[in-house]
Amino acid sequence: MLYQLPDSDIERFMDEDVPYGDLTTMLLGIGALRGEITFTSREATTLCCTEEAARVLERCGAAVNFLLPSGSTIDAGVTFLSASGAAGSLHAGWKVALNLLEYASGIATRTRKIVNRVKAVNDSITVVTTRKSFPGTKKVAIKAIMAGGALPHRLGLSESVLVFRQHTAFCGGLELFLQTVTGMKAKAPEHKIIVEADSAEEALAIAVAGVDVVQLDKLQPEALTRLVQQLHIVAPAVKISAAGGIIAENASAYAETGVDMLVLSAVYFGKPSDIAVSITSLQP
Amino acid sequence: MLYQLPDSDIERFMDEDVPYGDLTTMLLGIGALRGEITFTSREATTLCCTEEAARVLERCGAAVNFLLPSGSTIDAGVTFLSASGAAGSLHAGWKVALNLLEYASGIATRTRKIVNRVKAVNDSITVVTTRKSFPGTKKVAIKAIMAGGALPHRLGLSESVLVFRQHTAFCGGLELFLQTVTGMKAKAPEHKIIVEADSAEEALAIAVAGVDVVQLDKLQPEALTRLVQQLHIVAPAVKISAAGGIIAENASAYAETGVDMLVLSAVYFGKPSDIAVSITSLQP
Amino acid sequence: MLYQLPDSDIERFMDEDVPYGDLTTMLLGIGALRGEITFTSREATTLCCTEEAARVLERCGAAVNFLLPSGSTIDAGVTFLSASGAAGSLHAGWKVALNLLEYASGIATRTRKIVNRVKAVNDSITVVTTRKSFPGTKKVAIKAIMAGGALPHRLGLSESVLVFRQHTAFCGGLELFLQTVTGMKAKAPEHKIIVEADSAEEALAIAVAGVDVVQLDKLQPEALTRLVQQLHIVAPAVKISAAGGIIAENASAYAETGVDMLVLSAVYFGKPSDIAVSITSLQP
Amino acid sequence: MLYQLPDSDIERFMDEDVPYGDLTTMLLGIGALRGEITFTSREATTLCCTEEAARVLERCGAAVNFLLPSGSTIDAGVTFLSASGAAGSLHAGWKVALNLLEYASGIATRTRKIVNRVKAVNDSITVVTTRKSFPGTKKVAIKAIMAGGALPHRLGLSESVLVFRQHTAFCGGLELFLQTVTGMKAKAPEHKIIVEADSAEEALAIAVAGVDVVQLDKLQPEALTRLVQQLHIVAPAVKISAAGGIIAENASAYAETGVDMLVLSAVYFGKPSDIAVSITSLQP
Amino acid sequence: MLYQLPDSDIERFMDEDVPYGDLTTMLLGIGALRGEITFTSREATTLCCTEEAARVLERCGAAVNFLLPSGSTIDAGVTFLSASGAAGSLHAGWKVALNLLEYASGIATRTRKIVNRVKAVNDSITVVTTRKSFPGTKKVAIKAIMAGGALPHRLGLSESVLVFRQHTAFCGGLELFLQTVTGMKAKAPEHKIIVEADSAEEALAIAVAGVDVVQLDKLQPEALTRLVQQLHIVAPAVKISAAGGIIAENASAYAETGVDMLVLSAVYFGKPSDIAVSITSLQP
Amino acid sequence: MLYQLPDSDIERFMDEDVPYGDLTTMLLGIGALRGEITFTSREATTLCCTEEAARVLERCGAAVNFLLPSGSTIDAGVTFLSASGAAGSLHAGWKVALNLLEYASGIATRTRKIVNRVKAVNDSITVVTTRKSFPGTKKVAIKAIMAGGALPHRLGLSESVLVFRQHTAFCGGLELFLQTVTGMKAKAPEHKIIVEADSAEEALAIAVAGVDVVQLDKLQPEALTRLVQQLHIVAPAVKISAAGGIIAENASAYAETGVDMLVLSAVYFGKPSDIAVSITSLQP
Repeated sequence: MLYQLPDSDIERFMDEDVPYGDLTTMLLGIGALRGEITFTSREATTLCCTEEAARVLERCGAAVNFLLPSGSTIDAGVTFLSASGAAGSLHAGWKVALNLLEYASGIATRTRKIVNRVKAVNDSITVVTTRKSFPGTKKVAIKAIMAGGALPHRLGLSESVLVFRQHTAFCGGLELFLQTVTGMKAKAPEHKIIVEADSAEEALAIAVAGVDVVQLDKLQPEALTRLVQQLHIVAPAVKISAAGGIIAENASAYAETGVDMLVLSAVYFGKPSDIAVSITSLQP
Repeated sequence: MLYQLPDSDIERFMDEDVPYGDLTTMLLGIGALRGEITFTSREATTLCCTEEAARVLERCGAAVNFLLPSGSTIDAGVTFLSASGAAGSLHAGWKVALNLLEYASGIATRTRKIVNRVKAVNDSITVVTTRKSFPGTKKVAIKAIMAGGALPHRLGLSESVLVFRQHTAFCGGLELFLQTVTGMKAKAPEHKIIVEADSAEEALAIAVAGVDVVQLDKLQPEALTRLVQQLHIVAPAVKISAAGGIIAENASAYAETGVDMLVLSAVYFGKPSDIAVSITSLQP
Repeated sequence: MLYQLPDSDIERFMDEDVPYGDLTTMLLGIGALRGEITFTSREATTLCCTEEAARVLERCGAAVNFLLPSGSTIDAGVTFLSASGAAGSLHAGWKVALNLLEYASGIATRTRKIVNRVKAVNDSITVVTTRKSFPGTKKVAIKAIMAGGALPHRLGLSESVLVFRQHTAFCGGLELFLQTVTGMKAKAPEHKIIVEADSAEEALAIAVAGVDVVQLDKLQPEALTRLVQQLHIVAPAVKISAAGGIIAENASAYAETGVDMLVLSAVYFGKPSDIAVSITSLQP
Repeated sequence: MLYQLPDSDIERFMDEDVPYGDLTTMLLGIGALRGEITFTSREATTLCCTEEAARVLERCGAAVNFLLPSGSTIDAGVTFLSASGAAGSLHAGWKVALNLLEYASGIATRTRKIVNRVKAVNDSITVVTTRKSFPGTKKVAIKAIMAGGALPHRLGLSESVLVFRQHTAFCGGLELFLQTVTGMKAKAPEHKIIVEADSAEEALAIAVAGVDVVQLDKLQPEALTRLVQQLHIVAPAVKISAAGGIIAENASAYAETGVDMLVLSAVYFGKPSDIAVSITSLQP
Repeated sequence: MLYQLPDSDIERFMDEDVPYGDLTTMLLGIGALRGEITFTSREATTLCCTEEAARVLERCGAAVNFLLPSGSTIDAGVTFLSASGAAGSLHAGWKVALNLLEYASGIATRTRKIVNRVKAVNDSITVVTTRKSFPGTKKVAIKAIMAGGALPHRLGLSESVLVFRQHTAFCGGLELFLQTVTGMKAKAPEHKIIVEADSAEEALAIAVAGVDVVQLDKLQPEALTRLVQQLHIVAPAVKISAAGGIIAENASAYAETGVDMLVLSAVYFGKPSDIAVSITSLQP
Repeated sequence: MLYQLPDSDIERFMDEDVPYGDLTTMLLGIGALRGEITFTSREATTLCCTEEAARVLERCGAAVNFLLPSGSTIDAGVTFLSASGAAGSLHAGWKVALNLLEYASGIATRTRKIVNRVKAVNDSITVVTTRKSFPGTKKVAIKAIMAGGALPHRLGLSESVLVFRQHTAFCGGLELFLQTVTGMKAKAPEHKIIVEADSAEEALAIAVAGVDVVQLDKLQPEALTRLVQQLHIVAPAVKISAAGGIIAENASAYAETGVDMLVLSAVYFGKPSDIAVSITSLQP
C-alpha cells in the first residue's frame, strides 16, 4: 500500500495544464455530452499514480469506474483505469491524468525491470534510488520507485549520513577524516555512516576505518567483484553498495558482484510509459 | 532573456532535498569552513536554470561569483557557475543546484540539437514542444525548451484550440465536425484552429475544410513528404505540423518533408546533462 | 460546463473572512441550532460561482439542498441556492458565499448583457475580454465572463502575440516592425499575430503588412465603420477587433461597425449583483 | 506608513499574467534592449500599491528609479513611478504593475473623495469600509482604503461582534436578543457590541438595550437625521453608524445626519484609475 | 460548534511527519492487514482537534468509527476516537493525529481548568488569551482555547487597539498620549481603546483619561485588589483586565481581585495531554 | 551553522499576527517616527531564530543593526538583536519576532541544559529528540534542538525504521517479528533497525535478535542501569537508547545508566524564554 499524493499536488498538476477549462471543448459545444474514458497499456507496464489520475478525473467532474492500484504489473493491452462523465470533464482531465500515469509508470516500470533482474541473480540484494529525481517531483518519483520494488537510498540531506570527497576536502583529506569515524558513529548512533569511495584503494581504507557502508562510485562490475571479495576479507561487517551508471543492461552484472545494494539514478529519467487513451461518446 | 522561476519553486526544490540542513556536514563539524563550488560541463551543453541554481546557492548562504546565462551553449570543460561561502552553505545547495541544472540543461541541450539540425535543413521551420513535460515541472521545462531555441506548442488546454479525434467523437465524427469549422473560426477569431489527423486521407479532408493548421500524428517522413505536396496543392494557406516520435535522429528527415512545424515531446525526457562539481576548501 | 475553482482558492476566500470562526454566533450561543440559508436574485442576473458558493457552505458544515449552475440567467426573485445546517455553519459561510456570488455574477451579468446586445446586431461577432481583471482574481473573472457568453481575449503574455506601440518602440518604430511580420508569422505559425493600431492610418499599414488581426484601440463607432470598410478592401483576410471603452451603452454601436470582435475590460468592474440572503431558524 | 503585501501575493499576480515570460517580446527579439517605463496619472488620483508595482518590476529584472508612496494624492499628469531595464523586463511587468496600480488606486481615490467630503462636513466622523471586497483581494483592498483615509469596519467574522437579524432569528427575535445584551457585554468586555437596525423603531429598541453601537442600514439621510436626534436623547452614549448605499454623491448628506461613522462598500468596486504608461527605448 | 482547520493545514501536518509513507510498515510488509486504532484519555482532558485528527486518519485511508467533538471534557480512560483500516493507513496517521490531539487538548485542558476556577469565584469574569501562541500554530491554538472556554484577547495587530508603553514612547510619554485618547476614540468608534499600565499610578491616570479598558500587567493579586477598588471609584465605567503570569495556581486569586477579565498566555505552552493509543489487528 | 527557515514560513508567521498592519500605531499617527528596537535576555538563554527574527523586522521595513547567531548561549542581560527604523516597522515586527525568539530559544535552552548535564556525565552520549514537536512547527523545533546541541532522533516516518508494539501486533507478536529481523536488515542495509522495548524481558529478546538499536521506553534509571549491563553481555554490539519522560531533572541519572542515547520529547514544550524588548524613540 503506497502513499497518496496530497491534494495540493493534484491541484498543481491541473493548474499547469487546464487553469481555465478546455477551450476546444467549449468552442465545440460538446462539454455536456456524456462519455467514457479508458486507459490501456500499450506495453508491459508497472503502474504508478493510478490513484492520483483517478482523483484528477474526479476533480474534473467524472466518476471513476475502476482502477488497478499503483504497483500492479500488467501486460500490454490491459485497461487499468476507466471513468465516465461529461465530455468536458473527460477532456479537462485526460492529458493531466495521462501525463502523470506515463511519467510515474515509466519510472516504476524501469525500476521493476531492474529489480527483477537483480532479484533473479540474488534475492537478498536491495535496490535503492538516489536523490536525483526531477526537481519538484519527489513525491511522484519516490512513489514510483516503490511501486517498482525499490526503496529510497536517502530522501535528502537532513536524515542520513553520506560522506563524499567534497566533505573530506574540508577535513584535511580522506585519511584524516577516517580517523574521526569512530567519533562520528558515537554522535549519530541511530544512523549508518556511509562513505563514498572513488577507487578500490579508497574503499579498502574506508572499510577498515569502521564505517557501516562503503559506497563504490562508477566501478565496473569486474573490478567491483574483485574489490568486494577483498572487502569481505578485511571488513566483513561492512555493507557494500554500488552506485553510478547502473541501468537495466548492466544490472545483472552488478548484482553478480556480491554487493549488498545497487544505487540507481537512471530509473528517474527515460521514456514515459506508452498508454493508450480512448474517449468514447455514450450518447445514443 | 528568459523568465526566472518564482521563489516558491526555489523553496520547493530546497525543501525536497534539504529541509533541515545537511546532517553530514553538521556531524563532521565543517560547516563554518570557507570553500568554493564550481560547476563545469562534462559535455557540450546548452545551459538552463543557471540563474535559479545561483539563487539556491545564495539562499543557502553562499555568494555567487559568476554565471553564464540560461541559453548559453558551451563545450565540455567550461566552468559556468561558481560560488563561495561556508562549507555548510555549499553542501546544502550543491545537489539541489546540480540536479536542477542537469535536468533543465538536458532538456535545453536535446532541444538545441534538434533545432540546429532542423535549421540546417530549413531555417524557416519552427520547432515547438508539447504539453507532455513531467507533471509539476512546466516552469522548468518551458524555460529549458526556450533556452534550446524552441517555443511551446501550446501551454495548456485553456489558451489554444487543438481538435483531436477524442473531440470529434462527440461531434458525430470527423466529417460532421469539419462542417462546423467555419463557425468555430468565427467564434475564436484570435485563435488558430488546429486539427490533428491520423492519416493522409483525414489530413486532406481537414485541410480543405478551412482550418488554420493540420497536425499530422506519427506519419513517417516519406509518407509525410508526399502528403505535404498534396496539401500544398489543395490547401496552400494551411500550415502543416508534424508530431509524434520526432527525435534527434529523425529530425532532419522530418525537416525535409516540407512541413512548417515540428512538434516535439521527446526533449522533455532523457538523460540529464553531465555536469562536474568541484567543492574546494579555501582554508589556509 | 464551466471549470471549478481549486480548493486552495476556496480556502483562501474563507481565510480572509472567517479564519477563526464567527465570534458573534459563538457569543450568542446559537451555533448548534438548525437553520436554512437561501440566496435569491433581486434583479435579472446571470449567475456565476454557485458551485463554489455551495462548496464554501459545505466546508462550513452545511448541506446544500439545490443550486442553479453558473451560466444560468434568471429573473429577479428566483431562489437559486439553498443549504441547511447548524446556525454556526450558515453564519460562517454566509458572506463568503454571498460576496463571491455577487462579484462573479456581476461580471457575468454585465458580460451577458453586452453579448446579448451584440448578438442582436450580428450573431457572428465574438465578444472577448482582456487581461485587466482585478489582480489575484483571474480564476473567478474568466469563469464569470464565460458564464456571460464571452471568451478570453488572451489569458496572459505567455500564450498569445499582441504587438503594442510599446513593443515597436524597440523595433525602430511601426514601419520597421511591419517589415518583420512575415518572419514573425513563420516563427509562430500556431499563433495569430495581432497588432494594435492607435489610428486609422496605422491600422491600414498594419493590415496590409500581413498580420492576422488588427486591434483598434479607442476609435469611435463612426470612424470605425469607415475604417472597417477600408480595411475590408485593402486586406480582406485580416480580422478586425475593437477595444477600449466598450460598455453596455455603446456595444450595439460597436457591433454595427462591422468588426469581427469586441474586446472588453469594463465588465470586470462595476457594481456586484444584488442578491438577497435569508437565514431562517428551523427550530420548532 | 502602510503595510506591504507579502511576496506570495506578488508571485500570484505575476503567475496569473506572465507565467512563462512574454511571448511577443521573445518573438520580436527585443528582450535585451534597454528601456525605461514610466507611470503617469491621467486624472487626480490617490495612489496605492506603488511599492508592490515596483516590486513586480524588480522581480522582472528592472531597476526602480523612483516612486511616490501609497497614500499620495496627485493631480493628473504626474509621473509617480519609473523603472529602467531590459525591454523584456519592462514588458513582463508592465501590465501586472499597471493593473495592480489601477485597481488599488481606484479604491483609494474613491475612498479619499468620500473621506474628504465627509471631513469637510464634520471632521470627527469616521469613515470605515465593510468586508465586501472582491474575494481574494483583501490585502490590496484594505491597503487601498487606508491609503484613501478610511479604516476597516471589521476585517472578518472572527474579531468583532456585529449582530444581524439573521442572528436574532435564532434567538427568538430581536426583543429576546436584546435581553441578553448585558450578558454578551460581560462575555466580551474588550469588544464593542454592534447591532444592525433595519428601521427607526428597531434602532431605538437596540440603543436603549445597552449596546455600544447601533448600525443603521439603508436609511435615507432625512429619516436618519431625525432618528439620530432621538437616539441622542434616549441613549446618548451609544455610537451610531450608517451603512448601505453610501457613495460619493450622498456622502455629505449622510455626514450631516449627525452619525458617528459611515460604513462604505461602494469604494471597493467601480472604474480603476486611469494611468498612462510610457515605455521608451534607451538605445542610441 | 468550533471552526475546522483548512485542508492545507492538515496536509502540512502530514507532510512534516510522513511525506513518503511509513518505511517501517512497508519493510514489515504489514500494510494491507486490517486493524483498528483507538485514542483514549489517560487523564481528565478537554479535547481539541478530534475532527482534524479524524481527517488525518481519513486522508491516510482509514474509516473513522466515532469521535467526541472538540470541547468535550472527559475523565481518564475514555475512548474518544476510533478508526479502522489497513495497518498502513493506521500507522501513517497515528502520530500525526496523536500529536495534534495532545498539543491541542493540552491547551484546551489548561484553559478549561483556569476557566473553571475563575468561574467558581465569579461567573461574570471573562478569560481571554493573548497572541503569544507558538508561531505558525494560531489556528490550532485559538480553537483550543475556545474549546477550553476562553476567547481570544486579540487575534493580531490589525483588528484591535492596545497601547503599550512602547507606543507612548513615540507620543512624548504616557501623559501626552492620554491627552489624545478622546480623539483616538472618535477615530475608532467601533473599537475599544485598551491601554496597558505597568503600575497602579499609571493605571489610575489611564483610567481617568477615558479609555475603555485598562490592562494591568504583572501586578500581584493583593495590590491588584486595592487598585481595582480605587479604579471603580475614579472611573467606574472602565473595564479592568489583569495580564502577566496568570496560571492555574493563582487564577482564583486573580479572579477574586474584582477585575473584569483575565488575560492568559501560559495556557499555550506546557505538557501536552497524555493520550493512549491502541492499534490492534483485526485479522482472524 | 544552522539552516534558515524559508520565506514562506516568515510570511506565515507575519500573516498570523499582522495581516493588515498595526492598527494602534496607525491610529496614534506615530508610524513614521524613527526608533530602535532591542532584544535582551532576561535569563541565561541559548538563542534560536535570531536570523529569522531579523528577517521579520527587515520585511517590516526596519534595518537590522546586529544579531548573535542561533546557537549562541548568553547570560541574562545581554542584548543580542537590534534594529532601527520607522515606529510603524518596529511595532509591526515586534511581537512576531519576539514570539518566535521566545519559543525557539525556549526549546534551545531546555535542550542545551540537558545536553550539558549529560555531557558532564559522559561526553560520548548522544542526545536526540523525537517527532513530537507542535504540529506545523518542525522547521523551528529542529533548528532549536540543534541550536541546543541535540540532533533529531528521526525526522518522520519515511526515512527511518522504528518498530513499535503497534507494528508487531500485525506480525503475530514480538517473538514472530524478531524472527524476521535478519531479513529486514537485508532489505534496508542503509538503515539501522531500531525496536522499542517496554520491559527488560522484551529488551533482551530484541537485542539478541540482531537489531541495531533497542529503545527502552519509560524505564527508571535504576532498572535501566541493570538492564544495560545485561544487554552489554548478551549483545555487545547493540546500541541502547532510553526514551520516555527524560527531563532536565533526571537527565544526569539517565546518562549514568550507560545507555548510548537519550531520546527527548520534553524540550519541545515548556515556558518560552523570557526576553526583554525595548523600543525607544530616536526623535530629537
